[in-house]
Amino acid sequence: MNKIENDLFLRACKRLPVDRTPVWIMRQAGRYLPEYRAIRQKYDFLTLCKTPDLAAEVTIQPVDIIGVDAAIIFSDILVIPEAMGMALSIEDGTGPVFAKPIRDESDAASLKDIDPGTDLKFVMDALSVTKKELNNRVPVIGFSGSPWTLLTYMVEGRGSKNFSQVKSLIFRNPKLAHKLLEKLAKAVAGYLSAQLESGANAVQIFDTWGGILSPEDYREFSLEYIKMIIASMKKNDEPVIVFSKGVHQSFSELASSGADVIGLDWTVDIGTVKRQIGNDVALQGNMDPTVLYADKAKIKKEVKRILQSYANAANDNRDSAGSGNSGGHIFNLGHGILPDIEPENARAFVEFVKEESIKQHSAIAV
Amino acid sequence: MNKIENDLFLRACKRLPVDRTPVWIMRQAGRYLPEYRAIRQKYDFLTLCKTPDLAAEVTIQPVDIIGVDAAIIFSDILVIPEAMGMALSIEDGTGPVFAKPIRDESDAASLKDIDPGTDLKFVMDALSVTKKELNNRVPVIGFSGSPWTLLTYMVEGRGSKNFSQVKSLIFRNPKLAHKLLEKLAKAVAGYLSAQLESGANAVQIFDTWGGILSPEDYREFSLEYIKMIIASMKKNDEPVIVFSKGVHQSFSELASSGADVIGLDWTVDIGTVKRQIGNDVALQGNMDPTVLYADKAKIKKEVKRILQSYANAANDNRDSAGSGNSGGHIFNLGHGILPDIEPENARAFVEFVKEESIKQHSAIAV
Repeated sequence: MNKIENDLFLRACKRLPVDRTPVWIMRQAGRYLPEYRAIRQKYDFLTLCKTPDLAAEVTIQPVDIIGVDAAIIFSDILVIPEAMGMALSIEDGTGPVFAKPIRDESDAASLKDIDPGTDLKFVMDALSVTKKELNNRVPVIGFSGSPWTLLTYMVEGRGSKNFSQVKSLIFRNPKLAHKLLEKLAKAVAGYLSAQLESGANAVQIFDTWGGILSPEDYREFSLEYIKMIIASMKKNDEPVIVFSKGVHQSFSELASSGADVIGLDWTVDIGTVKRQIGNDVALQGNMDPTVLYADKAKIKKEVKRILQSYANAANDNRDSAGSGNSGGHIFNLGHGILPDIEPENARAFVEFVKEESIKQHSAIAV
Repeated sequence: MNKIENDLFLRACKRLPVDRTPVWIMRQAGRYLPEYRAIRQKYDFLTLCKTPDLAAEVTIQPVDIIGVDAAIIFSDILVIPEAMGMALSIEDGTGPVFAKPIRDESDAASLKDIDPGTDLKFVMDALSVTKKELNNRVPVIGFSGSPWTLLTYMVEGRGSKNFSQVKSLIFRNPKLAHKLLEKLAKAVAGYLSAQLESGANAVQIFDTWGGILSPEDYREFSLEYIKMIIASMKKNDEPVIVFSKGVHQSFSELASSGADVIGLDWTVDIGTVKRQIGNDVALQGNMDPTVLYADKAKIKKEVKRILQSYANAANDNRDSAGSGNSGGHIFNLGHGILPDIEPENARAFVEFVKEESIKQHSAIAV
């Protein structure tokens, strides 16, 4: 593979020294960008996902327009259940809808095993086109939903407030839930491996709904399957990021899951987490996405606060353990960027991370 | 005041010895009960809140039908903004709606100061009727929304996914946000004091949206005002419960807020929290409300698990600090009971807490 010009993101994932903190934004190829909306006016969401040239185009937009240090392939986590045979539609206002959710053994039996290379070839093609057009300027991240998060959508069928259906399933028929989760874990492991083979330089597992579970249920129904995926993926040294949104009492377990990077939402202080789990994994996050509604002075202040919190903890860890790490942080929002954010503010956010972290890294370098 | 027959709830709030763990259920007077639905068929929600005899009737229903150890006055947190002059409607499917949300200084100027005793007299009257009809069988809990949670509804105007409006307010115009929060804190302190004077034996502050803030913002925009309320309330020794849903890195600060009891949602392990904060406050919670969809064997297993987790931590705290506390736990769900739960399962849940905690308390009593 050719050398990547800006490899800060990959170095930070591996906790190698960096001269500044890399930054990207979850959902950075999205509706807040006029350039993205211009394309979406002509094609619906799933067409965009399934047309490699278009997917590559919107994947690269934020690299050029916002200045992020990594691209993430434009796709949707629900392409896996769709490939398994579930009819998926994206309804305006409602979001994704599965007309026939999975609720019992016979529904489950209708799901077919997938071969990611053929059933999700459009994602692999999108990665190839993206790699070619990006020309190694920055790394490209592949991704998948976690088995638990995919199961949640498959059982609920649409967005949910209380997740009554999927909770009923795990509490009333845990055997079926585990059977489905295992099937999904195999599919996800194959899918992520195929993305790496198609040129992705790292992968992220989005466990968007990990946080609706108690710590005990999280371990049983989500974390175990994430560990299974990481252990069975075919990979070289490409980093794996796990983002279990809303999960906050399981960081130590996540740190020994095999993940290289743990994603944090904005409801935790990143320094507190770093002190708790030490230096064995990198951390990604964690600014409140709504801070981008504020003026630039406030955005800058918040960027500095998070960088400082991380740096203080890194220094404390060094003091106590004898070996700290001033890197190991990938800046990001704590959740996806919202569709009504001004692109100008996203750009300023990225610029502040770059400027402020350079100052800080030179101050705390050994 | 006359002696309350079953005062387990109040004793547990004060961390006094109890021979079993008391239990009540958030939103226990609600739609899952056919007896409640029968009344709601005849009257709309706000009429029910504002008619003391009806409010008292539904307040007492779960004491008789489910067997809980405390009643909580039937009302809604939004009666305060309504009393301040905001037109409130409850729309089917949408929930509560304020037609004219508060977004700027001139909106804020239109809010009047309230005198809870007169402006919210219907709540005080409902408490008086409830006290009389309950005849001191169990304590009655009064409640209010926290200033932050009330502000959230007042600024958003209706349910929200990303809370863009209220976040924009605190990040762009923190001065106005603080002015509104202070006004609300004064109103809430007066309102809770009046409820105690009207016969409530304890009060709970519902900070339903505390968890959408970063720990730093939670401190500034929510916790400070909760502390202000507790410090300025007129009260004797009635316990104050604070339930900041989704807040999980601020338990130590909550423990020194002046609250007697901290409410926990189901995304934390109660034993882990007890070990962290010690024995100076009681804990309330924390079963996942969706466990009530399961069969009785699973409900019982989960009740036992939570009781055991608390007991183990209480024993550890005793070992290390020299004085533990086998009480100090009020069993509850981690959020309100869902409207499609079988009353039979709610009843079984309450019964399991009683049965299992008696065994445990006799096993660990000193």
